[in-house]
Amino acid sequence: MAAMMSPDPERSPLFTDLYQLTMLQAYWREGMDEPAVFDLFVRRLKDRNYLLACGLEPCLDFLDDLSFSEEDLDYLAAQEQFGDDFLDWLADFTFTGDVYAVPEGTPVFPDEPILEVVGPIGEAQLVETFLLNQITYQTNLASKAARVVEAAGGMESDRLVADFGMRRMHGTDAAMKAARAGYIAGVDATSNVAAGKRYGLPITGTMAHSYIEAHDAEMDAFRRFADLYPETILLVDTYDTVAGVRKVIELAEEKGEDFRVRGIRLDSGDLAELAHESRRLLDNAGLDDVLIFASGGLDEYKIVDLLERDAPIDGFGVGTKLGTVADQPGLDSAYKLCGYAGQPRMKLSADKSNLPGRKQVVRQYEEGTAVRDVIATEEEQVPGAPLLERVMADGERTDAGRSRPLDAVREHAAARRGELPDRLHALAPEADPYEIVLSDALRERRDRTQEHLEATMAEPTT
Amino acid sequence: MAAMMSPDPERSPLFTDLYQLTMLQAYWREGMDEPAVFDLFVRRLKDRNYLLACGLEPCLDFLDDLSFSEEDLDYLAAQEQFGDDFLDWLADFTFTGDVYAVPEGTPVFPDEPILEVVGPIGEAQLVETFLLNQITYQTNLASKAARVVEAAGGMESDRLVADFGMRRMHGTDAAMKAARAGYIAGVDATSNVAAGKRYGLPITGTMAHSYIEAHDAEMDAFRRFADLYPETILLVDTYDTVAGVRKVIELAEEKGEDFRVRGIRLDSGDLAELAHESRRLLDNAGLDDVLIFASGGLDEYKIVDLLERDAPIDGFGVGTKLGTVADQPGLDSAYKLCGYAGQPRMKLSADKSNLPGRKQVVRQYEEGTAVRDVIATEEEQVPGAPLLERVMADGERTDAGRSRPLDAVREHAAARRGELPDRLHALAPEADPYEIVLSDALRERRDRTQEHLEATMAEPTT
Repeated sequence: MAAMMSPDPERSPLFTDLYQLTMLQAYWREGMDEPAVFDLFVRRLKDRNYLLACGLEPCLDFLDDLSFSEEDLDYLAAQEQFGDDFLDWLADFTFTGDVYAVPEGTPVFPDEPILEVVGPIGEAQLVETFLLNQITYQTNLASKAARVVEAAGGMESDRLVADFGMRRMHGTDAAMKAARAGYIAGVDATSNVAAGKRYGLPITGTMAHSYIEAHDAEMDAFRRFADLYPETILLVDTYDTVAGVRKVIELAEEKGEDFRVRGIRLDSGDLAELAHESRRLLDNAGLDDVLIFASGGLDEYKIVDLLERDAPIDGFGVGTKLGTVADQPGLDSAYKLCGYAGQPRMKLSADKSNLPGRKQVVRQYEEGTAVRDVIATEEEQVPGAPLLERVMADGERTDAGRSRPLDAVREHAAARRGELPDRLHALAPEADPYEIVLSDALRERRDRTQEHLEATMAEPTT
Repeated sequence: MAAMMSPDPERSPLFTDLYQLTMLQAYWREGMDEPAVFDLFVRRLKDRNYLLACGLEPCLDFLDDLSFSEEDLDYLAAQEQFGDDFLDWLADFTFTGDVYAVPEGTPVFPDEPILEVVGPIGEAQLVETFLLNQITYQTNLASKAARVVEAAGGMESDRLVADFGMRRMHGTDAAMKAARAGYIAGVDATSNVAAGKRYGLPITGTMAHSYIEAHDAEMDAFRRFADLYPETILLVDTYDTVAGVRKVIELAEEKGEDFRVRGIRLDSGDLAELAHESRRLLDNAGLDDVLIFASGGLDEYKIVDLLERDAPIDGFGVGTKLGTVADQPGLDSAYKLCGYAGQPRMKLSADKSNLPGRKQVVRQYEEGTAVRDVIATEEEQVPGAPLLERVMADGERTDAGRSRPLDAVREHAAARRGELPDRLHALAPEADPYEIVLSDALRERRDRTQEHLEATMAEPTT
C-alpha cells in the first residue's frame, strides 16, 4: 500500500509540467533571478457574459507551503537532467514572490488579470501549472453555477439549487472544489459530504432508486424512510411517477398529523408535465406544503425551459452538466510573462498576445451599476474601484490574502454580481457586452513593447 | 493551516453523496444486510465506437482501506440525522464485499458491467459515489486518448503523443489520473511530473514562450537552453515561426558537430503549413533529423486533418481537449442495483432501465477478431472469453485484483484493442456497431423481473 499513498499533489511542487522545472534550472544557471511579472487571465468568453473568479484560496495555500521533499529531489535526480548543485538549491526552495489577485467571487472579463505573480522568474514560472489547474476549473465552475442559480430565479428566490454532480466530476479534487465554487456562486447545498466537512457547506440529499428497489414494495420503502427521516424527500419515479406520488399521498393519510415529508423528487420523464400533475395530485390531497424537486440532466437552459412552462418546481438538483461544465469544460485561460527585470514583455503569436507589465483593473460605476472596466498600468490613478489586491508579499499572505469565511465570499459574489448591468445576467451571449477599455498609458506601453519586439526580431540575430 | 490540511478524499468514506449515508443508516436500522448486486456500466456511446475501461485500481485501493475516522464520526454526529448506535457501528465499518471487474484497458460497450459489487447492501451503496467518480472520468479519458493515439498513427507508429493537459484538467486528481489513463491508452509520455513520479510514467517537456520572452533575444534563449539541454526541443513560434526556425538553423551552424537539438515545437498558426515550411528549411540546412512537434488546441480530429494534409509532424502535444474530454466531458455512467437477497432487481424508469442479476460478459472471436459480446447471467457457460474477473473477495484483493504494473496494463489494452474489428478504430461513429447480445437466460430474467415488478405495482398498495 505504501507506494500508493503518495503525498497530496496539492502540496507538491512536482505537481507541475516538466518544462517548468527544466526552465527553473536554466534560469538558475543563467543567474536570471530578477523579478518577473506573470498574469493569469482568460482570453475570451464563449457563451458567457462574465466569469466569476474562483480558486485563489487553494493557490495561496499551495504557495504558502511550497517545498521539495527528499523524495521529490531523489526523483528529480533520477531524471538525469538536473545537476546536484541545482538540486541542493531546490532543497531550500520556497516561494518568495508577491501575488496580486481579484477576490474570489468577483466578476471578471477577458484580458483582465485574475491574478498576477511577481517574483524571481524561476519561482513564478514553476507555479504556473498549479495556479492554472486550480483557477481555470474553479472559475469555470463558479461561472456556470452562477448561470444555473440565475436560471432558477437568482439567490433571492426561494427555489433551491443543489450540487449533485460529484459522481461524474473529474476526480476527487474537482468534486471538492466544485462544491466550494458552486456555493460561492449561490448554489444552496451539496451532496458531497467530504466537501461539507472540509468547507462547512450545507449538505443535502434525498434517496436513490436502489433503496426503493431493495424493498419489496415502493410503499414499504417510503414508509420506512419517512419513519427514520420524517422530513425527507421521497423519490417517486422508480417505477411510475404518478403512482409514486399517489403512494406519498397514501402515506400522508396513513400518518395523519405525523406526516412531515418535505417533498418529492422527480428524476426522469417530462419533468414539467410530471411536476404539474404531481402538484395537482398533492394539492387535491391537501398537501400544498409538500415541495417538488427535480433532477436528471439539468443545466441552466433546461431549468429556464421548465420554468417557462410554469413547472411548479421548488428546487433543482444539478449534476453532470454543471460539474463537468459540459458546454465548455476548458476555459481559455493563460498565464503569461508580461514583464522581466523591469521591462515589459509580451508574446506576438497570432491570436495569443497579452498585455505587458503590471496592471490594475478598475471598475467604474454609474448610479451603483458597473458600466465599464479600465485595464490600466499599475501606477495610474484611474477613478473607480480597483479590483486587484496584494494577497501575498514576499511569499507571506497579507491581510487582504487571509483566508475568508466562505459565507463572506458568497456574499461578496452576490453583491458584485448584483452591480452588473441587467443585460449581463441573460443566459444568451449579450450583443452589447460589458465595456472593457485599456487606459491610454497601457495602450501606449503595449504599442511600444510590440514595436520594440518587432524591431528586435527584424535585426539580424547575433 | 491545519484546518485546510484535510484528509485525502481518496481515503475518506465521506467522499460520497449524503444520501448514501442516510440510506446506509436506514438499511442498518431495517436489518437489511443481505447481499446486494450493483453494477457499474455506461448506458450509451456517443461519438465513440468503444470505451476503454479504466479507473479500477484507485477503486480497489479505496475499498481496501475504507474506514471512518473519529473526525468523520464527529462530523456526522453534528448533522443530527445519525443515531449514536449507528455511529458506533460505523466506527468498525469496513468494506467486506466482493468485486468483479473487467481488467483496466479492456474495450467495453454499453450495458456491459465494467464492475460489479456484491456485498451487504449498505456497504455496496456507500461506495457508489467514489467508484463512479473514478471510473467515469478515467474510462472517458482513456477512451478519448485511444482515439488520439489512433489518429496519430497508432501505438506502432513512430509518431509520439504527449499529454500536456494538466493545467486545464479539472483539479489535481484529474491531472494525476488522466496521465495514468492516457498512458494505458497508448499516450507516450506526460508533462505531469507528480504523475511521472507516482506512476512511473515517462515525463516530457520542451520550453515555454515565457522563457524566450525573458531573454533579450530569441537566439540567446535558444543558445542557452541548448547548452544546458543539448537534446532539447526548441519552441519556435513566440514571435514569428519561420524566423524562429531560421534561428535554430543558425544555432546548428554555430554549434557544428555539437548540435544535438532533437526538435522544434510549433504551437500556433496553421500547423500544417508551418510544418511543411519548417521541414523544408530544416532539410535544406541538412537538419533532416531535427523533428517537428506540434501543439495547441489539438484533438483526434485536428491530428487527422494535419496528417491528411501530409504535415510532416513527428509528435503531438495534446492538452485541454483530451484532458477535459472536451466533446463529452461526462460519460453516461450508472451504478444500479440489480439484485438483493438473491432476487433480481431493476429500475423501470423510461430510458433508464438496467439488466437484473449478476452477469458475465463473454467476448466471442472469429479468427482472432472479436465479433460480438454476449452479456449473460453469471451461471451460464457461454463459449468465448469471459471479461469479468473477481478482483476482491470478502473485502480483500484476490490474485486477479492485485495491482498490475502499468506497462502490463498498457500492453493488455493494446492487445485487446488490436482484436477489435478494424471498423471500430474509425473516429466517426460506426454505422455497423459492434454486436452486443443478451443471452437467452439473461433476456428471460429481465422479462420475468419486469413482469413481476409491473404486476406488483399494479396491485393496490398495502
